[in-house]
Amino acid sequence: MAIERGGATAALWEKAGASIEMPVRFAETDAMGIVHHSNYVVWFEAGRIGWMAAVGMPYSEIAAGGHHFAVTGIGVEYRTPARFGESVRVVTRLCRLRSREVAFAYEVRRAGDDAFLASGRSEHICVDLEGRTAKIPGEVMGRLQQGVAVLAEQAGA
Amino acid sequence: MAIERGGATAALWEKAGASIEMPVRFAETDAMGIVHHSNYVVWFEAGRIGWMAAVGMPYSEIAAGGHHFAVTGIGVEYRTPARFGESVRVVTRLCRLRSREVAFAYEVRRAGDDAFLASGRSEHICVDLEGRTAKIPGEVMGRLQQGVAVLAEQAGA
Amino acid sequence: MAIERGGATAALWEKAGASIEMPVRFAETDAMGIVHHSNYVVWFEAGRIGWMAAVGMPYSEIAAGGHHFAVTGIGVEYRTPARFGESVRVVTRLCRLRSREVAFAYEVRRAGDDAFLASGRSEHICVDLEGRTAKIPGEVMGRLQQGVAVLAEQAGA
Amino acid sequence: MAIERGGATAALWEKAGASIEMPVRFAETDAMGIVHHSNYVVWFEAGRIGWMAAVGMPYSEIAAGGHHFAVTGIGVEYRTPARFGESVRVVTRLCRLRSREVAFAYEVRRAGDDAFLASGRSEHICVDLEGRTAKIPGEVMGRLQQGVAVLAEQAGA
Repeated sequence: MAIERGGATAALWEKAGASIEMPVRFAETDAMGIVHHSNYVVWFEAGRIGWMAAVGMPYSEIAAGGHHFAVTGIGVEYRTPARFGESVRVVTRLCRLRSREVAFAYEVRRAGDDAFLASGRSEHICVDLEGRTAKIPGEVMGRLQQGVAVLAEQAGA
Repeated sequence: MAIERGGATAALWEKAGASIEMPVRFAETDAMGIVHHSNYVVWFEAGRIGWMAAVGMPYSEIAAGGHHFAVTGIGVEYRTPARFGESVRVVTRLCRLRSREVAFAYEVRRAGDDAFLASGRSEHICVDLEGRTAKIPGEVMGRLQQGVAVLAEQAGA
Repeated sequence: MAIERGGATAALWEKAGASIEMPVRFAETDAMGIVHHSNYVVWFEAGRIGWMAAVGMPYSEIAAGGHHFAVTGIGVEYRTPARFGESVRVVTRLCRLRSREVAFAYEVRRAGDDAFLASGRSEHICVDLEGRTAKIPGEVMGRLQQGVAVLAEQAGA
Repeated sequence: MAIERGGATAALWEKAGASIEMPVRFAETDAMGIVHHSNYVVWFEAGRIGWMAAVGMPYSEIAAGGHHFAVTGIGVEYRTPARFGESVRVVTRLCRLRSREVAFAYEVRRAGDDAFLASGRSEHICVDLEGRTAKIPGEVMGRLQQGVAVLAEQAGA
């Protein structure tokens, strides 16, 4: 995980993590008997949507308002495979927030024993309905920043 | 497979089948070591889109024109599992065509030895961009009917 | 939904339903702006695995014991599309249980307003690790039957 | 793309690329109207399997021999979205080959106009059936190296 800003902001973002937990779906396994690696990218997305809900800026509202956070980059490092019969927890944190860009860092852990399974990062640009790069709307930006502060405080910032 | 109309139409539709062939993706397998059953539904869709291209009425044009064939029902019967390392062939045939409805029948066979793997059926209603039931546009209907006749003739009707 | 046995058993199975609830994943949507129809098959599987956990016979234990409930048939009827931003609830019920076969019925509803979205059915045969048809092991059968009775009682049978 | 070795080997690997082409599946689109970003990871895998077939060392044979190339890392950079109605071409090249590790680089282009859509990389370790790190079997290694040389020569090395 790589939170970019130094000092106070980095500490804030580090604290403002949000978790989702979900059972591994049998459909997510592959013939190696483990979860297929492509599903972690889907789990990251679920984690990021959970994070947005946790900070009070649901992604469905951003989309309904005509903007999307288009994915420009994805990275995943896999350490231990997830398996059917287990549940996984995805912890999501903001790691970049600029006028037109946002990035998130993720950890995937096995629920129960907290074993570290994978980590990763996603990078996004804000686009409008025609797919053109756009500024993150002021209200969205405001709610994201305020929500991060509240979430960090709840975590004991 | 169940083609509904009797007589001449049924014979025509039976002949107007179109095939696509594709290698099994490793991502499509599951921890039983076989292709996960949900993927056949995706393969049917690929088959149906291939069929529409074969009759000269590409689905992307229908969608661009503001209509979709929304799926109202799906049925699959699985006989022999597909496995990684194999290619599969999906044969698609029209089996219902009414002013607002269309249905297709599918066979999935293993490429190479032609082993029968699965069969199924999908039912659709035509909807507009707001998701309301709509008549299949006259031009679409005409191209579908003409294309079926041409495809059947090519097959030696 | 079609529960097959008459009289007391049908009433028992009807009562012994189990629910899971989950947010729609953005990855599950398609270019029509709704959940792609293939995902309901994956949701049914999640529902059935939830049902097995609810009756005290986790599917991961059946698999670890060397048996699988291979899918032989799937049927889905779609009424109202699910959309991103919503959560769905899958209610699963047993509708057949024989020495080598089992079948389940499903309802998918929108969490919140309980709107009916889709229903369906899956049919399975018990297979061993080599994929051969096998009797459902006695212990599995016993735990399934006992679990159904307990679940129905909890529901106020 | 980042091919690691300098000099003659890098030039060889650069030339020994293999392509697969496939139509975008409607199921691969999302509610933004474009291909969901997770599918590129699946396409990379299909590309890598195509590359192995092209060099004469099919992945299904490696798996049948009791080894897997477990994924340890994935990176994707997205430039232009793929859409339904288009076909995509994945060009795969080897970019690392050590006793226990292998890595591949990918380019995704739109068939027809060759527009650049995305690039990426996958990293793998060789594992045995119990999931333990293992040396790439000598025969596999030999066939990979020989196949690369042949493929590069065919490309006009």
